[in-house]
Amino acid sequence: MTEHNSKARPQPAFLFDLDGTLIDSVYQHVLAWREALETEDIHLPNWYIHRRIGMSGGLIVHAFLREAKRKLDAKEIARLQKLHTEAFMKRVETVRILPGANDLLETLSRLGVRWAIATSGSREGAEQPLKLLGLDKDVPVITRDDVQRAKPDPDLFLAAARKLGASLEDCVVVGDSIWDLLAAQRARALGVGLLSGGFGEDELMNAGAYRVYRDPADLNMHLDEIGIRGI
Amino acid sequence: MTEHNSKARPQPAFLFDLDGTLIDSVYQHVLAWREALETEDIHLPNWYIHRRIGMSGGLIVHAFLREAKRKLDAKEIARLQKLHTEAFMKRVETVRILPGANDLLETLSRLGVRWAIATSGSREGAEQPLKLLGLDKDVPVITRDDVQRAKPDPDLFLAAARKLGASLEDCVVVGDSIWDLLAAQRARALGVGLLSGGFGEDELMNAGAYRVYRDPADLNMHLDEIGIRGI
Repeated sequence: MTEHNSKARPQPAFLFDLDGTLIDSVYQHVLAWREALETEDIHLPNWYIHRRIGMSGGLIVHAFLREAKRKLDAKEIARLQKLHTEAFMKRVETVRILPGANDLLETLSRLGVRWAIATSGSREGAEQPLKLLGLDKDVPVITRDDVQRAKPDPDLFLAAARKLGASLEDCVVVGDSIWDLLAAQRARALGVGLLSGGFGEDELMNAGAYRVYRDPADLNMHLDEIGIRGI
Repeated sequence: MTEHNSKARPQPAFLFDLDGTLIDSVYQHVLAWREALETEDIHLPNWYIHRRIGMSGGLIVHAFLREAKRKLDAKEIARLQKLHTEAFMKRVETVRILPGANDLLETLSRLGVRWAIATSGSREGAEQPLKLLGLDKDVPVITRDDVQRAKPDPDLFLAAARKLGASLEDCVVVGDSIWDLLAAQRARALGVGLLSGGFGEDELMNAGAYRVYRDPADLNMHLDEIGIRGI
Protein backbone atom coordinates (compact mmCIF):
# COMPACT_ATOMS: atom_id res chain seq x y z
CA MET A 1 0.00 0.00 0.00
CA THR A 2 1.47 3.39 -0.92
CA GLU A 3 1.65 6.13 1.66
CA HIS A 4 -1.07 8.38 0.26
CA ASN A 5 -3.51 5.44 0.28
CA SER A 6 -2.82 4.58 3.87
CA LYS A 7 -4.62 7.58 5.35
CA ALA A 8 -8.03 6.74 6.77
CA ARG A 9 -10.99 6.69 4.40
CA PRO A 10 -13.80 8.98 5.60
CA GLN A 11 -16.76 7.32 7.36
CA PRO A 12 -19.37 6.39 4.76
CA ALA A 13 -22.31 8.76 4.25
CA PHE A 14 -25.82 7.26 4.22
CA LEU A 15 -28.44 8.03 1.58
CA PHE A 16 -31.86 6.73 2.67
CA ASP A 17 -34.91 5.93 0.64
CA LEU A 18 -38.09 6.89 2.52
CA ASP A 19 -41.13 4.67 1.70
CA GLY A 20 -40.55 1.08 2.87
CA THR A 21 -37.12 2.01 4.27
CA LEU A 22 -37.86 4.45 7.10
CA ILE A 23 -41.66 4.58 6.80
CA ASP A 24 -44.12 1.68 6.55
CA SER A 25 -46.13 3.01 3.60
CA VAL A 26 -45.57 0.55 0.73
CA TYR A 27 -48.72 -1.51 1.21
CA GLN A 28 -50.87 1.62 1.32
CA HIS A 29 -49.19 2.80 -1.91
CA VAL A 30 -49.99 -0.56 -3.55
CA LEU A 31 -53.70 -0.32 -2.81
CA ALA A 32 -53.74 3.40 -3.71
CA TRP A 33 -52.25 2.65 -7.16
CA ARG A 34 -54.72 -0.20 -7.60
CA GLU A 35 -57.59 2.16 -6.86
CA ALA A 36 -56.26 4.85 -9.21
CA LEU A 37 -55.59 2.41 -12.07
CA GLU A 38 -59.08 0.93 -11.89
CA THR A 39 -60.61 4.35 -12.59
CA GLU A 40 -58.93 4.05 -16.02
CA ASP A 41 -60.16 0.44 -16.31
CA ILE A 42 -56.56 -0.81 -15.92
CA HIS A 43 -56.48 -4.03 -13.91
CA LEU A 44 -53.16 -5.16 -12.46
CA PRO A 45 -52.72 -7.49 -9.49
CA ASN A 46 -51.42 -6.09 -6.20
CA TRP A 47 -48.16 -8.11 -6.18
CA TYR A 48 -47.26 -6.70 -9.61
CA ILE A 49 -47.94 -3.13 -8.49
CA HIS A 50 -45.93 -3.82 -5.32
CA ARG A 51 -42.84 -4.82 -7.35
CA ARG A 52 -42.86 -1.45 -9.13
CA ILE A 53 -43.22 0.71 -6.01
CA GLY A 54 -40.10 2.84 -5.56
CA MET A 55 -39.88 3.84 -9.21
CA SER A 56 -40.80 7.45 -9.78
CA GLY A 57 -44.40 8.39 -10.54
CA GLY A 58 -43.64 8.86 -14.23
CA LEU A 59 -41.70 5.64 -14.77
CA ILE A 60 -44.10 3.57 -12.69
CA VAL A 61 -47.11 4.66 -14.76
CA HIS A 62 -45.31 3.75 -17.96
CA ALA A 63 -44.44 0.34 -16.51
CA PHE A 64 -48.11 -0.19 -15.58
CA LEU A 65 -49.31 0.85 -19.04
CA ARG A 66 -46.80 -1.44 -20.75
CA GLU A 67 -47.88 -4.40 -18.61
CA ALA A 68 -51.57 -3.69 -19.22
CA LYS A 69 -50.91 -3.05 -22.95
CA ARG A 70 -52.58 0.34 -22.74
CA LYS A 71 -51.72 3.87 -23.81
CA LEU A 72 -52.67 7.13 -22.09
CA ASP A 73 -51.84 10.69 -23.10
CA ALA A 74 -49.89 13.08 -20.88
CA LYS A 75 -53.05 14.59 -19.43
CA GLU A 76 -54.49 11.19 -18.49
CA ILE A 77 -51.16 10.16 -16.92
CA ALA A 78 -51.10 13.33 -14.83
CA ARG A 79 -54.68 12.61 -13.75
CA LEU A 80 -53.69 9.05 -12.75
CA GLN A 81 -50.80 10.33 -10.64
CA LYS A 82 -53.13 12.81 -8.94
CA LEU A 83 -55.67 10.05 -8.25
CA HIS A 84 -52.93 7.90 -6.72
CA THR A 85 -51.86 10.75 -4.42
CA GLU A 86 -55.49 11.27 -3.35
CA ALA A 87 -56.02 7.53 -2.79
CA PHE A 88 -52.82 7.40 -0.74
CA MET A 89 -53.83 10.42 1.34
CA LYS A 90 -57.06 8.57 2.27
CA ARG A 91 -54.81 5.89 3.83
CA VAL A 92 -52.05 8.12 5.22
CA GLU A 93 -53.46 7.95 8.76
CA THR A 94 -52.51 4.26 8.86
CA VAL A 95 -48.86 4.90 7.92
CA ARG A 96 -46.33 4.24 10.71
CA ILE A 97 -42.58 4.55 11.27
CA LEU A 98 -40.63 1.33 10.65
CA PRO A 99 -39.02 -0.32 13.71
CA GLY A 100 -35.74 1.35 14.63
CA ALA A 101 -35.87 4.15 12.03
CA ASN A 102 -35.40 6.96 14.54
CA ASP A 103 -32.80 5.01 16.54
CA LEU A 104 -30.78 4.37 13.41
CA LEU A 105 -30.77 8.04 12.38
CA GLU A 106 -29.85 9.06 15.93
CA THR A 107 -26.99 6.55 16.05
CA LEU A 108 -25.59 7.92 12.80
CA SER A 109 -25.91 11.54 13.95
CA ARG A 110 -24.27 10.72 17.28
CA LEU A 111 -21.33 9.12 15.47
CA GLY A 112 -20.97 12.12 13.18
CA VAL A 113 -21.97 10.07 10.13
CA ARG A 114 -23.54 12.25 7.46
CA TRP A 115 -26.93 11.11 6.14
CA ALA A 116 -29.65 12.37 3.82
CA ILE A 117 -33.02 11.21 2.51
CA ALA A 118 -33.58 10.70 -1.23
CA THR A 119 -37.14 9.76 -2.20
CA SER A 120 -38.80 9.23 -5.60
CA GLY A 121 -41.91 10.84 -4.13
CA SER A 122 -42.81 14.48 -4.54
CA ARG A 123 -41.92 17.08 -1.89
CA GLU A 124 -45.63 17.37 -1.11
CA GLY A 125 -45.98 13.61 -0.69
CA ALA A 126 -42.88 13.42 1.53
CA GLU A 127 -44.14 16.04 3.99
CA GLN A 128 -46.31 13.73 6.08
CA PRO A 129 -43.75 10.89 6.40
CA LEU A 130 -41.01 13.37 7.36
CA LYS A 131 -43.31 14.85 10.00
CA LEU A 132 -43.96 11.31 11.28
CA LEU A 133 -40.20 10.84 11.71
CA GLY A 134 -40.07 14.14 13.59
CA LEU A 135 -37.04 15.30 11.63
CA ASP A 136 -35.49 18.75 11.91
CA LYS A 137 -36.15 21.11 9.02
CA ASP A 138 -32.44 21.22 8.22
CA VAL A 139 -32.17 17.49 7.44
CA PRO A 140 -31.10 17.18 3.80
CA VAL A 141 -34.01 15.79 1.78
CA ILE A 142 -33.95 15.31 -1.98
CA THR A 143 -37.30 14.61 -3.64
CA ARG A 144 -38.51 13.91 -7.16
CA ASP A 145 -39.01 17.69 -7.58
CA ASP A 146 -35.27 18.35 -7.21
CA VAL A 147 -33.96 16.17 -10.06
CA GLN A 148 -34.72 15.49 -13.68
CA ARG A 149 -34.87 11.69 -13.45
CA ALA A 150 -35.90 9.51 -10.51
CA LYS A 151 -35.01 5.91 -9.58
CA PRO A 152 -33.76 3.64 -11.05
CA ASP A 153 -31.80 6.59 -12.51
CA PRO A 154 -29.09 7.60 -10.04
CA ASP A 155 -29.91 11.35 -10.04
CA LEU A 156 -31.63 11.40 -6.63
CA PHE A 157 -28.67 9.78 -4.90
CA LEU A 158 -26.17 11.91 -6.82
CA ALA A 159 -27.98 15.05 -5.67
CA ALA A 160 -28.18 13.79 -2.08
CA ALA A 161 -24.44 13.01 -2.01
CA ARG A 162 -23.69 16.44 -3.45
CA LYS A 163 -25.80 18.05 -0.72
CA LEU A 164 -23.74 16.18 1.91
CA GLY A 165 -20.49 17.07 0.18
CA ALA A 166 -19.78 13.34 0.00
CA SER A 167 -18.14 11.38 -2.77
CA LEU A 168 -20.42 8.68 -4.23
CA GLU A 169 -17.80 6.02 -3.65
CA ASP A 170 -18.04 6.78 0.06
CA CYS A 171 -21.85 6.55 0.10
CA VAL A 172 -24.13 3.77 1.26
CA VAL A 173 -27.59 3.75 -0.34
CA VAL A 174 -30.22 2.13 1.91
CA GLY A 175 -33.47 1.07 0.25
CA ASP A 176 -36.21 -1.56 0.26
CA SER A 177 -36.79 -1.86 -3.48
CA ILE A 178 -34.75 -3.16 -6.38
CA TRP A 179 -34.99 0.35 -7.87
CA ASP A 180 -32.96 1.77 -5.00
CA LEU A 181 -30.29 -0.88 -5.46
CA LEU A 182 -30.14 -0.50 -9.24
CA ALA A 183 -29.81 3.27 -8.78
CA ALA A 184 -27.08 2.64 -6.17
CA GLN A 185 -25.12 0.56 -8.69
CA ARG A 186 -25.53 3.21 -11.34
CA ALA A 187 -24.27 5.82 -8.86
CA ARG A 188 -21.32 3.52 -7.92
CA ALA A 189 -22.48 3.58 -4.30
CA LEU A 190 -22.75 0.59 -1.97
CA GLY A 191 -26.35 -0.67 -1.84
CA VAL A 192 -27.93 -2.02 1.35
CA GLY A 193 -31.36 -3.67 1.07
CA LEU A 194 -34.08 -3.80 3.72
CA LEU A 195 -36.87 -6.41 3.71
CA SER A 196 -39.22 -3.89 5.31
CA GLY A 197 -40.82 -2.91 2.00
CA GLY A 198 -41.89 -6.49 1.34
CA PHE A 199 -39.49 -7.33 -1.51
CA GLY A 200 -37.85 -10.76 -1.37
CA GLU A 201 -34.23 -11.11 -0.22
CA ASP A 202 -33.23 -12.70 -3.57
CA GLU A 203 -34.70 -9.77 -5.49
CA LEU A 204 -32.59 -7.34 -3.45
CA MET A 205 -29.43 -9.45 -3.70
CA ASN A 206 -29.95 -9.91 -7.45
CA ALA A 207 -30.30 -6.14 -7.81
CA GLY A 208 -26.83 -5.76 -6.33
CA ALA A 209 -27.30 -5.43 -2.55
CA TYR A 210 -24.03 -5.67 -0.63
CA ARG A 211 -26.03 -6.78 2.43
CA VAL A 212 -29.74 -7.25 3.23
CA TYR A 213 -31.27 -6.58 6.67
CA ARG A 214 -34.80 -6.93 8.00
CA ASP A 215 -35.50 -3.29 8.80
CA PRO A 216 -33.80 -0.12 10.16
CA ALA A 217 -33.50 -1.73 13.63
CA ASP A 218 -31.62 -4.69 12.17
CA LEU A 219 -29.33 -2.41 10.13
CA ASN A 220 -28.63 -0.38 13.29
CA MET A 221 -27.39 -3.61 14.91
CA HIS A 222 -24.96 -4.32 12.06
CA LEU A 223 -23.46 -0.95 11.17
CA ASP A 224 -19.94 -2.33 11.59
CA GLU A 225 -20.57 -4.55 8.55
CA ILE A 226 -21.00 -1.34 6.49
CA GLY A 227 -17.79 0.25 7.71
CA ILE A 228 -19.06 2.44 10.53
CA ARG A 229 -16.54 2.73 13.32
CA GLY A 230 -16.91 3.77 16.94
CA ILE A 231 -20.39 2.33 17.55
CA MET B 1 -38.64 -51.02 -15.05
CA THR B 2 -40.87 -53.89 -13.92
CA GLU B 3 -44.16 -54.55 -15.66
CA HIS B 4 -46.45 -53.43 -12.86
CA ASN B 5 -44.65 -50.05 -12.77
CA SER B 6 -45.10 -49.42 -16.46
CA LYS B 7 -48.84 -48.77 -16.33
CA ALA B 8 -49.78 -45.11 -16.65
CA ARG B 9 -49.86 -43.01 -13.47
CA PRO B 10 -53.16 -41.15 -13.05
CA GLN B 11 -53.24 -37.45 -13.99
CA PRO B 12 -52.29 -35.37 -10.94
CA ALA B 13 -55.09 -33.81 -8.89
CA PHE B 14 -54.80 -30.10 -7.98
CA LEU B 15 -55.34 -28.69 -4.49
CA PHE B 16 -55.55 -24.89 -4.60
CA ASP B 17 -55.03 -22.36 -1.88
CA LEU B 18 -57.49 -19.45 -2.24
CA ASP B 19 -56.12 -16.07 -0.97
CA GLY B 20 -53.17 -14.93 -3.10
CA THR B 21 -53.47 -17.99 -5.34
CA LEU B 22 -56.85 -17.61 -7.06
CA ILE B 23 -57.99 -14.35 -5.42
CA ASP B 24 -56.04 -11.09 -5.05
CA SER B 25 -56.78 -10.52 -1.36
CA VAL B 26 -53.43 -10.76 0.46
CA TYR B 27 -52.68 -7.03 0.63
CA GLN B 28 -56.14 -6.32 2.03
CA HIS B 29 -55.57 -9.04 4.65
CA VAL B 30 -52.24 -7.42 5.62
CA LEU B 31 -53.81 -4.03 6.30
CA ALA B 32 -56.80 -5.65 8.03
CA TRP B 33 -54.50 -7.52 10.43
CA ARG B 34 -52.53 -4.33 11.02
CA GLU B 35 -55.73 -2.51 11.91
CA ALA B 36 -56.91 -5.30 14.23
CA LEU B 37 -53.53 -5.64 15.99
CA GLU B 38 -53.31 -1.91 16.70
CA THR B 39 -56.56 -2.05 18.69
CA GLU B 40 -54.58 -4.25 21.13
CA ASP B 41 -51.64 -1.83 20.94
CA ILE B 42 -49.62 -4.45 19.05
CA HIS B 43 -47.42 -2.79 16.42
CA LEU B 44 -45.95 -4.96 13.68
CA PRO B 45 -44.80 -3.73 10.26
CA ASN B 46 -46.80 -4.65 7.17
CA TRP B 47 -44.06 -6.75 5.55
CA TYR B 48 -43.84 -8.92 8.66
CA ILE B 49 -47.62 -9.43 8.75
CA HIS B 50 -47.51 -10.19 5.00
CA ARG B 51 -45.01 -13.04 5.54
CA ARG B 52 -47.37 -14.77 7.97
CA ILE B 53 -50.51 -14.53 5.78
CA GLY B 54 -51.63 -18.02 4.77
CA MET B 55 -51.19 -19.47 8.24
CA SER B 56 -54.48 -20.22 9.96
CA GLY B 57 -56.11 -17.54 12.12
CA GLY B 58 -55.01 -19.29 15.31
CA LEU B 59 -51.38 -19.89 14.36
CA ILE B 60 -50.98 -16.45 12.81
CA VAL B 61 -52.12 -14.69 15.99
CA HIS B 62 -49.65 -16.73 18.06
CA ALA B 63 -46.87 -15.82 15.61
CA PHE B 64 -47.80 -12.13 15.94
CA LEU B 65 -47.87 -12.29 19.73
CA ARG B 66 -44.49 -14.04 19.86
CA GLU B 67 -42.92 -11.42 17.59
CA ALA B 68 -44.44 -8.56 19.60
CA LYS B 69 -43.50 -10.30 22.90
CA ARG B 70 -47.07 -10.10 24.08
CA LYS B 71 -49.59 -12.50 25.62
CA LEU B 72 -53.36 -12.49 25.17
CA ASP B 73 -55.94 -14.85 26.65
CA ALA B 74 -58.27 -16.98 24.54
CA LYS B 75 -61.05 -14.40 24.68
CA GLU B 76 -58.77 -11.58 23.52
CA ILE B 77 -57.42 -13.75 20.70
CA ALA B 78 -60.96 -14.55 19.53
CA ARG B 79 -61.74 -10.82 19.65
CA LEU B 80 -58.63 -10.07 17.55
CA GLN B 81 -59.67 -12.62 14.92
CA LYS B 82 -63.15 -11.12 14.80
CA LEU B 83 -61.69 -7.60 14.40
CA HIS B 84 -59.51 -8.85 11.55
CA THR B 85 -62.52 -10.35 9.77
CA GLU B 86 -64.44 -7.07 10.20
CA ALA B 87 -61.46 -5.00 8.98
CA PHE B 88 -61.12 -7.31 5.96
CA MET B 89 -64.84 -7.07 5.17
CA LYS B 90 -64.47 -3.27 5.00
CA ARG B 91 -61.96 -3.86 2.16
CA VAL B 92 -63.62 -6.85 0.48
CA GLU B 93 -65.13 -4.68 -2.27
CA THR B 94 -61.60 -4.07 -3.58
CA VAL B 95 -60.76 -7.79 -3.85
CA ARG B 96 -60.42 -9.12 -7.42
CA ILE B 97 -59.80 -12.44 -9.16
CA LEU B 98 -56.15 -13.08 -10.06
CA PRO B 99 -55.27 -13.14 -13.80
CA GLY B 100 -56.12 -16.48 -15.38
CA ALA B 101 -57.73 -18.07 -12.30
CA ASN B 102 -60.97 -18.98 -14.06
CA ASP B 103 -59.18 -20.06 -17.25
CA LEU B 104 -56.91 -22.36 -15.26
CA LEU B 105 -59.81 -24.04 -13.44
CA GLU B 106 -61.70 -24.42 -16.75
CA THR B 107 -58.66 -25.95 -18.45
CA LEU B 108 -58.32 -28.51 -15.67
CA SER B 109 -62.04 -29.37 -15.73
CA ARG B 110 -61.99 -29.70 -19.52
CA LEU B 111 -59.07 -32.13 -19.30
CA GLY B 112 -60.81 -34.18 -16.62
CA VAL B 113 -58.22 -33.20 -14.01
CA ARG B 114 -59.68 -33.29 -10.51
CA TRP B 115 -59.22 -30.16 -8.41
CA ALA B 116 -60.32 -28.79 -5.04
CA ILE B 117 -59.82 -25.65 -2.96
CA ALA B 118 -58.22 -25.85 0.50
CA THR B 119 -58.10 -22.54 2.38
CA SER B 120 -56.92 -21.67 5.90
CA GLY B 121 -59.78 -19.19 6.06
CA SER B 122 -63.14 -19.91 7.63
CA ARG B 123 -66.12 -21.06 5.56
CA GLU B 124 -67.74 -17.68 6.21
CA GLY B 125 -64.64 -15.82 5.02
CA ALA B 126 -64.35 -17.97 1.91
CA GLU B 127 -67.90 -17.28 0.74
CA GLN B 128 -67.24 -13.95 -0.95
CA PRO B 129 -64.07 -15.05 -2.81
CA LEU B 130 -65.81 -18.21 -4.04
CA LYS B 131 -68.71 -16.11 -5.27
CA LEU B 132 -66.22 -13.84 -7.05
CA LEU B 133 -64.84 -16.90 -8.87
CA GLY B 134 -68.39 -17.87 -9.84
CA LEU B 135 -67.83 -21.48 -8.82
CA ASP B 136 -70.55 -24.13 -8.79
CA LYS B 137 -71.83 -25.15 -5.37
CA ASP B 138 -70.56 -28.69 -5.93
CA VAL B 139 -66.88 -27.65 -6.22
CA PRO B 140 -65.02 -29.36 -3.37
CA VAL B 141 -63.94 -26.71 -0.86
CA ILE B 142 -62.17 -27.49 2.41
CA THR B 143 -61.96 -24.64 4.92
CA ARG B 144 -60.47 -24.13 8.37
CA ASP B 145 -63.82 -25.27 9.82
CA ASP B 146 -63.43 -28.76 8.34
CA VAL B 147 -60.11 -29.75 9.93
CA GLN B 148 -58.46 -29.68 13.31
CA ARG B 149 -55.20 -28.02 12.24
CA ALA B 150 -54.59 -25.55 9.42
CA LYS B 151 -51.46 -24.71 7.38
CA PRO B 152 -48.56 -25.30 7.72
CA ASP B 153 -50.08 -28.54 9.08
CA PRO B 154 -51.04 -30.75 6.14
CA ASP B 155 -54.61 -31.49 7.33
CA LEU B 156 -56.38 -29.16 4.86
CA PHE B 157 -54.66 -30.73 1.87
CA LEU B 158 -55.15 -34.25 3.26
CA ALA B 159 -58.88 -33.59 3.60
CA ALA B 160 -59.08 -32.07 0.11
CA ALA B 161 -57.31 -35.07 -1.44
CA ARG B 162 -59.63 -37.41 0.42
CA LYS B 163 -62.64 -35.50 -0.94
CA LEU B 164 -61.30 -35.97 -4.47
CA GLY B 165 -60.52 -39.63 -3.85
CA ALA B 166 -56.92 -38.87 -4.84
CA SER B 167 -53.72 -40.21 -3.36
CA LEU B 168 -51.48 -37.47 -1.89
CA GLU B 169 -48.54 -38.65 -3.98
CA ASP B 170 -50.59 -37.84 -7.08
CA CYS B 171 -51.53 -34.35 -5.82
CA VAL B 172 -50.15 -30.95 -6.74
CA VAL B 173 -50.59 -28.25 -4.09
CA VAL B 174 -50.73 -24.74 -5.59
CA GLY B 175 -50.17 -21.84 -3.21
CA ASP B 176 -48.63 -18.37 -2.90
CA SER B 177 -47.22 -18.63 0.63
CA ILE B 178 -44.44 -20.64 2.22
CA TRP B 179 -47.11 -22.15 4.52
CA ASP B 180 -48.78 -23.83 1.53
CA LEU B 181 -45.48 -25.27 0.38
CA LEU B 182 -44.44 -26.46 3.84
CA ALA B 183 -47.86 -28.12 4.22
CA ALA B 184 -47.40 -29.68 0.75
CA GLN B 185 -44.09 -31.21 1.83
CA ARG B 186 -45.62 -32.52 5.03
CA ALA B 187 -48.46 -34.06 2.98
CA ARG B 188 -45.87 -35.58 0.54
CA ALA B 189 -47.54 -33.69 -2.33
CA LEU B 190 -45.79 -31.72 -5.06
CA GLY B 191 -45.78 -27.99 -4.23
CA VAL B 192 -46.16 -25.29 -6.89
CA GLY B 193 -45.61 -21.68 -5.85
CA LEU B 194 -47.23 -18.56 -7.32
CA LEU B 195 -45.72 -15.07 -6.96
CA SER B 196 -49.22 -13.56 -6.97
CA GLY B 197 -49.40 -13.33 -3.19
CA GLY B 198 -46.29 -11.13 -3.09
CA PHE B 199 -43.84 -13.63 -1.53
CA GLY B 200 -40.36 -13.73 -3.08
CA GLU B 201 -39.38 -16.52 -5.47
CA ASP B 202 -36.50 -17.60 -3.17
CA GLU B 203 -38.85 -17.90 -0.20
CA LEU B 204 -41.11 -20.22 -2.19
CA MET B 205 -38.22 -22.27 -3.60
CA ASN B 206 -36.65 -22.53 -0.13
CA ALA B 207 -39.97 -23.79 1.23
CA GLY B 208 -39.80 -26.66 -1.23
CA ALA B 209 -41.57 -25.47 -4.39
CA TYR B 210 -41.07 -27.82 -7.34
CA ARG B 211 -41.75 -24.87 -9.67
CA VAL B 212 -42.71 -21.20 -9.23
CA TYR B 213 -44.97 -19.28 -11.63
CA ARG B 214 -46.15 -15.68 -11.69
CA ASP B 215 -49.88 -16.28 -11.29
CA PRO B 216 -52.67 -18.69 -12.34
CA ALA B 217 -52.38 -17.51 -15.98
CA ASP B 218 -48.68 -18.39 -16.05
CA LEU B 219 -49.31 -21.80 -14.45
CA ASN B 220 -52.02 -22.46 -17.05
CA MET B 221 -49.36 -21.92 -19.75
CA HIS B 222 -47.00 -24.47 -18.18
CA LEU B 223 -49.25 -27.34 -17.09
CA ASP B 224 -47.13 -29.83 -19.04
CA GLU B 225 -44.27 -29.13 -16.59
CA ILE B 226 -46.52 -30.48 -13.81
CA GLY B 227 -47.41 -33.66 -15.67
CA ILE B 228 -50.73 -32.70 -17.24
CA ARG B 229 -51.21 -34.38 -20.59
CA GLY B 230 -53.52 -33.59 -23.50
CA ILE B 231 -53.51 -29.78 -23.17
